[in-house]
Amino acid sequence: MDAYSDCELSDIGAALESYARFCAEQIVPLSHIGDTLGARFENGRVTMPEGDAQAYARFIEMGWQALTHPAEYGGIGLPRAVGAAAKEMLNAADMSFGLCPLLTDGAIEALLLTGSDEQKATYLGPLIEGRWSGTMNLTEPQAGSDLGRVATKAVRRADGTYGISGTKIFITYGAHDLTENIIHLVLARTPDAPSGPKGLSLFIVPQKLVEPDGTPGAENAVNCVSIEHKLGVRASPTAVLEYDDATGFLIGEENSGLEHMFIMMNAARFSVGVQGIALSERSYQRALAYARDRVQSRPVNGQSKHAVPIIEHPDVRRMLMRMRSLTEGGRAMAAATAGLLDMAHHRGDPETIAEAEFMVPLVKGFCTERAVEVASLGIQIHGGMGFIEETGAAQHYRDARILPIYEGTTAIQANDLLGRKVMRDGGAIARLFAARIAETEARLASGDASAQAIGTRLAQARGAFEAALDWMLENSRKDIDAAFAGSVPFLMLSGTLAAGWMLAKGALAAQTARDAGQDTAFLTQKIATALFYAQHILPECATEQARILHGAQSLLDAAFPD
Amino acid sequence: MDAYSDCELSDIGAALESYARFCAEQIVPLSHIGDTLGARFENGRVTMPEGDAQAYARFIEMGWQALTHPAEYGGIGLPRAVGAAAKEMLNAADMSFGLCPLLTDGAIEALLLTGSDEQKATYLGPLIEGRWSGTMNLTEPQAGSDLGRVATKAVRRADGTYGISGTKIFITYGAHDLTENIIHLVLARTPDAPSGPKGLSLFIVPQKLVEPDGTPGAENAVNCVSIEHKLGVRASPTAVLEYDDATGFLIGEENSGLEHMFIMMNAARFSVGVQGIALSERSYQRALAYARDRVQSRPVNGQSKHAVPIIEHPDVRRMLMRMRSLTEGGRAMAAATAGLLDMAHHRGDPETIAEAEFMVPLVKGFCTERAVEVASLGIQIHGGMGFIEETGAAQHYRDARILPIYEGTTAIQANDLLGRKVMRDGGAIARLFAARIAETEARLASGDASAQAIGTRLAQARGAFEAALDWMLENSRKDIDAAFAGSVPFLMLSGTLAAGWMLAKGALAAQTARDAGQDTAFLTQKIATALFYAQHILPECATEQARILHGAQSLLDAAFPD
Repeated sequence: MDAYSDCELSDIGAALESYARFCAEQIVPLSHIGDTLGARFENGRVTMPEGDAQAYARFIEMGWQALTHPAEYGGIGLPRAVGAAAKEMLNAADMSFGLCPLLTDGAIEALLLTGSDEQKATYLGPLIEGRWSGTMNLTEPQAGSDLGRVATKAVRRADGTYGISGTKIFITYGAHDLTENIIHLVLARTPDAPSGPKGLSLFIVPQKLVEPDGTPGAENAVNCVSIEHKLGVRASPTAVLEYDDATGFLIGEENSGLEHMFIMMNAARFSVGVQGIALSERSYQRALAYARDRVQSRPVNGQSKHAVPIIEHPDVRRMLMRMRSLTEGGRAMAAATAGLLDMAHHRGDPETIAEAEFMVPLVKGFCTERAVEVASLGIQIHGGMGFIEETGAAQHYRDARILPIYEGTTAIQANDLLGRKVMRDGGAIARLFAARIAETEARLASGDASAQAIGTRLAQARGAFEAALDWMLENSRKDIDAAFAGSVPFLMLSGTLAAGWMLAKGALAAQTARDAGQDTAFLTQKIATALFYAQHILPECATEQARILHGAQSLLDAAFPD
Repeated sequence: MDAYSDCELSDIGAALESYARFCAEQIVPLSHIGDTLGARFENGRVTMPEGDAQAYARFIEMGWQALTHPAEYGGIGLPRAVGAAAKEMLNAADMSFGLCPLLTDGAIEALLLTGSDEQKATYLGPLIEGRWSGTMNLTEPQAGSDLGRVATKAVRRADGTYGISGTKIFITYGAHDLTENIIHLVLARTPDAPSGPKGLSLFIVPQKLVEPDGTPGAENAVNCVSIEHKLGVRASPTAVLEYDDATGFLIGEENSGLEHMFIMMNAARFSVGVQGIALSERSYQRALAYARDRVQSRPVNGQSKHAVPIIEHPDVRRMLMRMRSLTEGGRAMAAATAGLLDMAHHRGDPETIAEAEFMVPLVKGFCTERAVEVASLGIQIHGGMGFIEETGAAQHYRDARILPIYEGTTAIQANDLLGRKVMRDGGAIARLFAARIAETEARLASGDASAQAIGTRLAQARGAFEAALDWMLENSRKDIDAAFAGSVPFLMLSGTLAAGWMLAKGALAAQTARDAGQDTAFLTQKIATALFYAQHILPECATEQARILHGAQSLLDAAFPD
């Protein structure tokens, strides 16, 4: 792409190496401390755990927030595909810390695409520097998945600003002491707006109003009332914010808020999928280290009379390979999706945009649901030690559990996939997805035994997808409840297939490199991972197909008597 | 059975009703307090959370520990099948509390079967009253799953007692302030014992030595050094115990300790499976209540313009039905297994004993792995609220995670199933299990449409089991690593099939009762649950079959380079 014509692979490698060092040295140590201390709330103020402020200052200093943002506003302008790799490292180091830049990225993306020139000039610079952070204010006590119920009021004032009043909950980094200012993006409703989701408008509500010289000035009427006591990501403050006639600035037109918010949400949803990969990778690395170290029991094949490291035992290998293949499958899928997002952004052709949008709920849904599974396996490999908090595996299991919930639950992703990405175009993009997979199968068929074995399983899984797709398109017309009864199975089928496809493409690339003489352990294991995934994970697609095709009625007919 | 000829169903019902009231009123309130406060360790003593001591005193007073133990030693003598129901209720009320009686039950069972007359006379009375509690001391820092590495020493003294020295870890209720005395059953090694598991002996080590009049006297040399900071079951103290020439009493012969311990472990493993059901039921009840209460979003079918309780949304119903069917499937399997254990104990015919022993790892493995899944779904149904600790769903997710680990990890259960219960008799009992399922299929085939649909899926799942069994028997001879690479998939296949079979039998019984005119919602929903399970859960058996038959090589070939 022209936009990235001056990005050299070697520069990107150097940037990622440098970021990796930063994450390993500065961020990793925060993870356990932050989990133990948590963010604290006292007298209306949030205090972050020890070490966070220093690390965040270093993060700003090194300019990491700017990585993928446009040079025009002070960004470095690297592709999203590079940004995804960087984001994974940061969140693997500490997901609680990673949430602050993640939300800021979302605010930047929304302002870039929907803000006025003046708004861009005011807010983008400090956000891209990381000196200010961003938040998304959607949820209210009665309005979670159902944004149509948002009740926060926005009353237009004579000067063109709006007075924002209401209560927002579950606001990630809604209050903290890491940045000079916090820019809240807030969904609210003007007095004469239509009811439901079509009457929402989006506002910029800076925590400190910005002076004409661009510096933060007087406090706005936004107060943090409390923060939540959570299962995980305890160093990430989850705030209840009270807006009491706070000054807000309309983004775009009135009643177009949901549309703008979707831009921000799509970026954030992709990023949360990447958090799932990050958390899976961290769990895997920890479990792998333990499995190499812990000596217990003789091998079952009798080849040694001595106890061996547990990594020698077949079931421990099974769990490790399951963790690894799910993680690498998610990573391959997210990288490919980031590439599609880059192309969609810069080329803007409808097919690429549609392909990218088809993939986003898969990345979010698959990578986050799998992260919960991977983190759970990470505990299991540790045995009893996994249940002891000091070991660290338990924190990943706790942290992971928010991933399939925030930025839209798995069911919301599934509704998005089925309603917007599959039904709306009559399955056109979904069929293109299947056709591309069939192309990969053809290449696998002419490969070696491993490639052929992967191809066989991939074809079966694609067959399950196509059968489910046909059924969905048919039933969405005649029995919408039955279609949505299978929405999450359809999402998981699609995501499982997509990750397996990407691993298969990786195996083909690895084989090509090996054929060219690069016979490294890395390439061999890429193929091993793809084969394991094909034989152990792809068969799950047939189960999801069975649930979709034969399971709707029993689900809808069941009752829940007292 | 003659042994239970005087047990009237009405009496059993009354006893369980009374126990249910006790659990709901006295134990349920402990659960959240105990989780918040946790057991505390100070100056070598463990203090239990507020309310535990009072509740436990009431537990003793009402004689609940005695429920299933023999009348000869002061027990009530009810069948194990009734005991399983009672145990589920207690652990659903508070798993941390339930662990104390659970361990005591295990100690009672071991003493009944292997203790001398004098030992029975000394210890059984107070244990069955619940005035004393029991513990199992197996694990040491270097000896977890691998009991052959136990290093605690037992040196015979002139008076016939033994001096026990060593460190034991992960001792559930190893120290607490609820009972007058704690009876530790300890695996240790005499100086001239063979190395490995065959050199272990089992000892009774009372925390307070028992006076000739049967009362607790001087403190034994057993010290609690610390307790663990755990992910869950925080009110259950997990102790590190130091034995410093403590006085121990040999059970049975020297070097027969593992055999005796297996008696205790089998009872405890079954009980931990029941804990899994208990935790699943509690999670389900909590999620169901929330789903009825929480109003969010219009129905997807457009039948209402108003937001509805989320239980109306298809995917929430899917999650609830998954929770319910897994829970009821586990419960049916555990109840049937308890019946087999009763028959095995009282009739003692080899076939019944073998059938009961085949089922124990299934109950432990399936019900505990599924409990983790069910508790995770319980959070998902709550959305963001599920991640907030005060909601309560998160505690179940944390508590559940120990279940597939303690009393033998899922892999240990799988090795037990494959090694001892399937390979050793050449698959005879496994084939009997399949044959009994085929009998149920024949009955389903002549039933109504629901019964036939259940029968079709059950037959497919049984086919997957038989294919996997054939493969296992074949490969255990020629490639033992390949067989054990599929051990956990084989366990999960077997457990998933067993639970589905039991639900199918329940559906037939419900239909018979309906045909006889009892047309209740309870019976209708029994059939609905079985049908859902058949269509949504049983298809997983085919996936496990694929993993076993085609997945061993890719698993064993994979490497983990640095």
